[in-house]
Amino acid sequence: MVNTLFLPELREMLAQHNEVELREFCEALHPSRTADFMDGLTPDEAWQILKFADQEKAGEIFGFFEHSFQKDIIETQNRDEIAALIAELSSDDRVDILSDVDSEIKEDLLRRLPADDRRDIMRLSQYPEGTAGSMMATEFMKLSENLTIGDAIKEVGKQSEYFETIYYVYIVDDEGHLRGVVSARQLLAGLRSPQTKLADIMESALITVKTRDDQTEVVKKVARMDLLAIPVVDDENHIVGIITHDDVIDVVREEAQDDLVKSAAIEPLEDTYLNTSILTFSYKRGLWLLVLFLGSLMTATALQSYDRQLEAWAWLVPFIPMIISTGGNSGNQSATLIIAALVHGEVTVRDWFRVVTREIIMGILLGLKLGFVGYLIVVFLFPSVPGFPQVLVVPITLVMVILTGTVMGATLPLFFKRLGLDPALMSNPFVAGIVDILGILIYLTVAGLFLAPPELG
Amino acid sequence: MVNTLFLPELREMLAQHNEVELREFCEALHPSRTADFMDGLTPDEAWQILKFADQEKAGEIFGFFEHSFQKDIIETQNRDEIAALIAELSSDDRVDILSDVDSEIKEDLLRRLPADDRRDIMRLSQYPEGTAGSMMATEFMKLSENLTIGDAIKEVGKQSEYFETIYYVYIVDDEGHLRGVVSARQLLAGLRSPQTKLADIMESALITVKTRDDQTEVVKKVARMDLLAIPVVDDENHIVGIITHDDVIDVVREEAQDDLVKSAAIEPLEDTYLNTSILTFSYKRGLWLLVLFLGSLMTATALQSYDRQLEAWAWLVPFIPMIISTGGNSGNQSATLIIAALVHGEVTVRDWFRVVTREIIMGILLGLKLGFVGYLIVVFLFPSVPGFPQVLVVPITLVMVILTGTVMGATLPLFFKRLGLDPALMSNPFVAGIVDILGILIYLTVAGLFLAPPELG
Repeated sequence: MVNTLFLPELREMLAQHNEVELREFCEALHPSRTADFMDGLTPDEAWQILKFADQEKAGEIFGFFEHSFQKDIIETQNRDEIAALIAELSSDDRVDILSDVDSEIKEDLLRRLPADDRRDIMRLSQYPEGTAGSMMATEFMKLSENLTIGDAIKEVGKQSEYFETIYYVYIVDDEGHLRGVVSARQLLAGLRSPQTKLADIMESALITVKTRDDQTEVVKKVARMDLLAIPVVDDENHIVGIITHDDVIDVVREEAQDDLVKSAAIEPLEDTYLNTSILTFSYKRGLWLLVLFLGSLMTATALQSYDRQLEAWAWLVPFIPMIISTGGNSGNQSATLIIAALVHGEVTVRDWFRVVTREIIMGILLGLKLGFVGYLIVVFLFPSVPGFPQVLVVPITLVMVILTGTVMGATLPLFFKRLGLDPALMSNPFVAGIVDILGILIYLTVAGLFLAPPELG
Repeated sequence: MVNTLFLPELREMLAQHNEVELREFCEALHPSRTADFMDGLTPDEAWQILKFADQEKAGEIFGFFEHSFQKDIIETQNRDEIAALIAELSSDDRVDILSDVDSEIKEDLLRRLPADDRRDIMRLSQYPEGTAGSMMATEFMKLSENLTIGDAIKEVGKQSEYFETIYYVYIVDDEGHLRGVVSARQLLAGLRSPQTKLADIMESALITVKTRDDQTEVVKKVARMDLLAIPVVDDENHIVGIITHDDVIDVVREEAQDDLVKSAAIEPLEDTYLNTSILTFSYKRGLWLLVLFLGSLMTATALQSYDRQLEAWAWLVPFIPMIISTGGNSGNQSATLIIAALVHGEVTVRDWFRVVTREIIMGILLGLKLGFVGYLIVVFLFPSVPGFPQVLVVPITLVMVILTGTVMGATLPLFFKRLGLDPALMSNPFVAGIVDILGILIYLTVAGLFLAPPELG
């Protein structure tokens, strides 16, 4: 996808066993770029190349491969070598990757890992997907509040080879309860007074999440408070892991894509568009397409019950799709705005009165605007429409249908949220269905009011 | 919005001039939470309270207020005090905030700032919105490659009071060209060999952005490479700023919301839902609603031109909305999937052949599924439809309309992207418009093929 120009050269280097250049290839670039350049290789080829990097670099590059490619490599290559690689990966990444690997292979790999790593993986695997526990990593630095700054710096220096990045140093009491946090900056600045206790410089107004908290809670806190990392604690306030900014960005991006996809009535994907099989799509799309289809069946039934009127007033028929789509569009706009505001925490269910009031005003404004345009169009472009008062049927219907759209679009997402359902997935289909059928009923009722008297007369 | 329970107490403390408790309120919590608790106060009240915090803390809390509230405070409070606060804000935040302030007040405030800060603000204000330059901050640490680790640590300790967080230390040559980067971890670990030159430990495989790069480029790099911060360089590779992870999360969230809102044919908002005026909405929504309305006018014109057929075959009429919405829904699904994949870089314009092929297969599969359901429904629920072959009109139309939807939904976003237009905003209206009109034409053409012979016979 990114750059396949380099693949022939890589393959040539492999064929020639060109150790110098392959090592250079693995070491010279940021590991994410090395991984990008390897996109398109077979799992065998990629694994051969990674062997030219040192263990740590190989782990970093591997961590940037696409999920499905990681799985293919793990399932096909030498188990002992793969186990050594897994030991290098960060604690959260390897749990994610292993969760999709064939369970027999996973068992086999776990047996080959050092006992510490195995226990760590087993423990992290217990947390259900979507919780803070499932996002956290266990590479964090924990020091006693009784240490001095000088001791702490020595300890950090010693441990730093095990940690890729030191975001914060977490300070605990004798029972391991989280008491505070100290940044690398504070330690460096504290070099001038190495005898000071950590307890005296630590920040104790801590922001934490619990292992069972939902990932959206994590995102909200980290994004709102501009944190580099947030500590995860158990029910007794022992620190058990941290969630870092990069994992939060990933979740934000995934959730954004899910929300967008859901707005078009599609179940969220687990993989990229091109890696998702057509059969999976056919299920994820077909389900809601069918629901929407069955919903629109009601419009057919409603129209059928008005068949006599429609035969008598045939000039009404051409405007049906226009009226239905306009109502649907205004409802879709309102629903999407409310969903976006709910997702971002700008609006809560308690704001319903304000939201509905706004959307009623909105509906009337938009309705009058489009109703007026509709009036001009009917008068000037559709000679088939009889004169006054019939020319008013379409404009009046437009105002009412647009208002129905905004009100339904405002109400249903809040209603689904209140019921604990997912407004992003449920709202658009229901708004569309309800507005379609109400649109038909409004149109024919308005027509009936205007047209019945002349018929009787 | 968040928590207004505390407001009466805050107001009481203010009335009593309770210095101890108000200071405690400002200092005890994370500044973002303090800001949350103050939501609902008047600008006057908030400013009175901030005066109880020390200057630095006041700046932090202020930084977490909503944009419009910041503006209200700046425009109404004592200019000298406000200027002192602005000097405390981070270089990127204050440029953002000042950009919305009344220009006379802004000029007045700039005059009251120290010359350094004023120059910094003027320089950063030059970069157009949406570029890396407009996102960057100028608080970063820059050291010469000839320094030793020991010197560097002393320097960091000295400068650290000016920097909230040290993400990375950037290493430059004698002409100020960016040469490499050293992390706080590396410095701490390097304490054991203080004589080593920075040039020997720095990472020189650097990822940078240019001042004019688009913010989506920044997001892509930081998110893909899990960076804490990315350096911004000018055309001569001098480092001029950094963009940090928290600003990247903000952009990701904003862009996600924009994409969602655009998918419903609404121009992106500049503020939150509740803070956007109804008149602004009436414009941002009304414009595209009108475009869609005028598009659907074509369906009315098309239907009008078939008025004789529709009168003769009145049983066709009730199915019109169902056929149109089903085509629209399938098109909306495809378009949204492709847009989401484009936004996330999973798909590029060059993948068009693969994308279109997939969507053709998808359209046929979904079409056959819904066509079959449609057939059963027509046969069993709509006695008004004459027998064979007329019962086939609706099912065959459904297959073709769904296929039209997927093909248009796949093609148009790629087409708009190719033209340099915004696929997220343009695609849904155009897909809807084109699929609606094609749906009508397909329906009446299929009907014509099946119904003409019996009429003639």
